[in-house]
Amino acid sequence: MAGGSGERFWPESRLACPKQLLPIVGDKAMLTQTIDRLEGLVPAEDVFVITNAEQRDAVLEVCPELDPAKVIGEPVGRDTAAAVALATILVKRENPHASFAMLPADAVIHDAPGLRSTLEAAFAAAEADPVLATIGITAAFPATGYGYMQQGDKFGDFAGRDVFKVKRFVEKPDLDTAQSYLDSGDYFWNAGMFVWSVASIVAELEKNTPSLWSALQAIDAGLAAGAAIDPLLAAHYPNLEKISVDYAIIEKAANVVMLESGFDWDDVGEWPAIARHYPADEAGNVVRGQAHLQNSSDNIVFSRDEGHLVALLGVKDLIVVETGDATLVCHKDRAQEIKGLVHAIGAKGALQRLM
Amino acid sequence: MAGGSGERFWPESRLACPKQLLPIVGDKAMLTQTIDRLEGLVPAEDVFVITNAEQRDAVLEVCPELDPAKVIGEPVGRDTAAAVALATILVKRENPHASFAMLPADAVIHDAPGLRSTLEAAFAAAEADPVLATIGITAAFPATGYGYMQQGDKFGDFAGRDVFKVKRFVEKPDLDTAQSYLDSGDYFWNAGMFVWSVASIVAELEKNTPSLWSALQAIDAGLAAGAAIDPLLAAHYPNLEKISVDYAIIEKAANVVMLESGFDWDDVGEWPAIARHYPADEAGNVVRGQAHLQNSSDNIVFSRDEGHLVALLGVKDLIVVETGDATLVCHKDRAQEIKGLVHAIGAKGALQRLM
Repeated sequence: MAGGSGERFWPESRLACPKQLLPIVGDKAMLTQTIDRLEGLVPAEDVFVITNAEQRDAVLEVCPELDPAKVIGEPVGRDTAAAVALATILVKRENPHASFAMLPADAVIHDAPGLRSTLEAAFAAAEADPVLATIGITAAFPATGYGYMQQGDKFGDFAGRDVFKVKRFVEKPDLDTAQSYLDSGDYFWNAGMFVWSVASIVAELEKNTPSLWSALQAIDAGLAAGAAIDPLLAAHYPNLEKISVDYAIIEKAANVVMLESGFDWDDVGEWPAIARHYPADEAGNVVRGQAHLQNSSDNIVFSRDEGHLVALLGVKDLIVVETGDATLVCHKDRAQEIKGLVHAIGAKGALQRLM
Repeated sequence: MAGGSGERFWPESRLACPKQLLPIVGDKAMLTQTIDRLEGLVPAEDVFVITNAEQRDAVLEVCPELDPAKVIGEPVGRDTAAAVALATILVKRENPHASFAMLPADAVIHDAPGLRSTLEAAFAAAEADPVLATIGITAAFPATGYGYMQQGDKFGDFAGRDVFKVKRFVEKPDLDTAQSYLDSGDYFWNAGMFVWSVASIVAELEKNTPSLWSALQAIDAGLAAGAAIDPLLAAHYPNLEKISVDYAIIEKAANVVMLESGFDWDDVGEWPAIARHYPADEAGNVVRGQAHLQNSSDNIVFSRDEGHLVALLGVKDLIVVETGDATLVCHKDRAQEIKGLVHAIGAKGALQRLM
């Protein structure tokens, strides 16, 4: 799933080039890293990417190893339930007995072997039993920006890993609640990673989102009749219910199981998060690109243009992002307002191209 | 006198393009504005510009009305006494009976008629009596960055203006002293503007800086013999004493008189000073160029590139300067450290071209 709009990483990210297509952390696009991490588990030619139509060319550019026929551009965004349903019919057409993983394209995971072994166990569970397997991320801090899942009884042993039932899913908590989750030890972050068989997810789609699923059946029928996918998506997608797979299915399904991650994970949701992935200098500054800092501390500087020098003097707790056509200077505490800033800039017509 | 190096306005100014060649305040280069202000008093074809050799072409570019033969590039900077001596031999060669004004090229003066009438009275004094006339700027605040002159007894009346003796010159004071100067009402800022006859300044140069003056006499002799000026300057300039005209002459001479300015003056010595010349928005931000500010106050934003957007979010008291190849983000209280920043950047060889 590579459909994000990237406003929170403006000006580095743009509508046409969001976070997943950029090396926000690391040297390759986040999507490319996501696919690379699966090496040995899922061959690149088996990977489907569901992105939005405007980003489809850029996806193929950063991931030339993908099969172009498997890079699907949604004409409009309809949240993750629609993407799951679309993926399901596409995989089902390849092999109705397959199992597949749904993975967000923009998370940072350094421990790729840890991810693969966890996914391998999830596949083993999903192939042995009609379950929806998800991965619970060990909470590193009392995050208020993520959903959580509460671990239940043990479900079984698969590929040498314990698999547990999920007692319940909870939405983004307040800080006190998040702290109590962290203290309890049996709450995990929901990273939106799922593994299931075609049969298992089809059963849930039929039961929980019948109108969405019937529209996808129409797309499937069109593909079977030899129609191209883009006109089919254009005809049906705008009418689909816009709902997340968590709301539509995961929180309702009785057969959800989880594996503890055992690997690092960070969704790097906004600029301050990148500081978790780069070493800071003695004054706490994290710098990517050509910069000179003097009497400055705890800043994040991100400059893509090699010919451009960013100089900071006597400043603290700033995010400074420099691209060829835009500069952002933002207090770290205001990073969550960048999305609103981008909308405000967009409202000024002349600046539309900078979005 | 247009020889400054412009470090304090980095990155807008560079060694090869310092403040006086840029429209730091207003729409024309500071030098061009300085010459324009003299319209009706000193024809452009009578203006000599003493700059450094590297900036000579740029001077002619921003001031095409100048006589190229009167735009002199010093091979090395030797402070203002050398520039005064050089100007003296050049003017003397045109007309040994002339009077002339020495003016810095980079001050902001909005009241051009006020300047002209003051200079006119200064010329009248310098032509009537063998005095060195200077202009005392009415202090607007207890500045610690300027030298001061104390007004003495009345010397006379010239072109309808009172002219006073100068009791003494004092160097940059501390804040308490500056405040006492401001309270006293008889201390004025020394803006480094002088008017004198060739005969008067020659007499002082001979008396106070004999070795400097004799080197300039050698240059004069070379010019009289038909030699080009650049090789003569290259031969003699590096050996000249590096001293300001204030130290070398003005503070020693017995015949210095002053006129009260009666016009506004600002040397705009560093970025925060430009805020005095542009209207601020409701939040106290002064913006030149394309910028979007949100939840931000009391900032100065200066962006030369029309295709570039500078966005500020949740920040206060910053100077943000954006050029095609460099960005400065500096706390207002640290503006006086920009010069040191530029030297530190220059010490990193790879960044030399950004100086």
